Amino acid sequence: MILAKVVGNLWATRKDEKLNGLKLMVCQRRLQEEVYDDKLIVAADNAGAGVGDHVLITTGSSARISFARDNIPADMVIVGIIDKVDFAE
Amino acid sequence: MILAKVVGNLWATRKDEKLNGLKLMVCQRRLQEEVYDDKLIVAADNAGAGVGDHVLITTGSSARISFARDNIPADMVIVGIIDKVDFAE
Amino acid sequence: MILAKVVGNLWATRKDEKLNGLKLMVCQRRLQEEVYDDKLIVAADNAGAGVGDHVLITTGSSARISFARDNIPADMVIVGIIDKVDFAE
Amino acid sequence: MILAKVVGNLWATRKDEKLNGLKLMVCQRRLQEEVYDDKLIVAADNAGAGVGDHVLITTGSSARISFARDNIPADMVIVGIIDKVDFAE
Amino acid sequence: MILAKVVGNLWATRKDEKLNGLKLMVCQRRLQEEVYDDKLIVAADNAGAGVGDHVLITTGSSARISFARDNIPADMVIVGIIDKVDFAE
Repeated sequence: MILAKVVGNLWATRKDEKLNGLKLMVCQRRLQEEVYDDKLIVAADNAGAGVGDHVLITTGSSARISFARDNIPADMVIVGIIDKVDFAE
Repeated sequence: MILAKVVGNLWATRKDEKLNGLKLMVCQRRLQEEVYDDKLIVAADNAGAGVGDHVLITTGSSARISFARDNIPADMVIVGIIDKVDFAE
Repeated sequence: MILAKVVGNLWATRKDEKLNGLKLMVCQRRLQEEVYDDKLIVAADNAGAGVGDHVLITTGSSARISFARDNIPADMVIVGIIDKVDFAE
Repeated sequence: MILAKVVGNLWATRKDEKLNGLKLMVCQRRLQEEVYDDKLIVAADNAGAGVGDHVLITTGSSARISFARDNIPADMVIVGIIDKVDFAE
Repeated sequence: MILAKVVGNLWATRKDEKLNGLKLMVCQRRLQEEVYDDKLIVAADNAGAGVGDHVLITTGSSARISFARDNIPADMVIVGIIDKVDFAE
């Protein structure tokens, strides 16, 4: 999985209806403590995330099985909101 | 998922017949607001996209389940046409 | 999917027998009009491609379902031979 | 698969319940003997790993089948703790 | 698929038992004729490969179906030992 920060929302009226009702959140992958990848990615939210949240994203087929219905055409899903990352000293 | 811009069409008469009837669109991934990846990618359209449109692309096995028939050998599918991306200030 | 050019053939007598009978073609991904990625990739042919052809490659699990038998251990398959790519002016 | 070093733990109270009970470990991919990729990754532990351990990580759908239940939305799983890597001289 | 060279063996006593009995081989991807990627990768052998061999590696879910049992948590499998790669002049 990857660490990421939610930086925005994406709106798309004309889309696959199987995505209807899902929040599509624009994110940037967190590479290190305060270093972010500048390539935007989009993840469907399944943890109640909001803009500014630090989140855990699962990718690929493992992502879509986070949802009850597994025919959702999403390859990135927010599966958790991060409380803390602790690094061994 | 990734953000992308449709930049062209691809024509291939000799191809897997399971791709017949699909529009194969040449795209460039949108990395940031006005920054695009120059590596060309090809996505099957499932949202009625046209050249110049800003689109949402799903990749991998999650992509092909966007279609009713799931035996389509496509690993990138346009699943939405983007209205707006809003970034929190 | 990705665009690529077939640059060679690969021969492997000792291989998974489920690959027997398939042409394994060495390719280079086409990044832009005349710009190629120098990292070699290998794709199983399912479109009748030959060396020098410009082809469309599907990757991942979506690739292997291009074949009638879906237990083929190939993660890149040539699914089309490109006639033309037209870019909007 | 990839080689990695466990560098920390991740805590997320609000997460997909199918991840409950799993240790989510922050890792850095080991590129060479003593060279690590600085991009953080997160893997679910299925080998009893601890911080500081050198581990083997499987990615994608092959990762989640390491668990008895295959509906776990994890795309990286620690499947082994490395004793030794021996390179032919 | 990718071309690679086997550069070593990996030993892991504490691992997913579904990996038991498999040779886990450390490899480097071959990018061009004599150019190798320095990022180490690990592939399960299914072609009788040895250190020094030039091999063909399949990745992702297509990799694990190379084995008779398809519940093997491996995302890279050696599916062939390369005799020859011939590039059109």
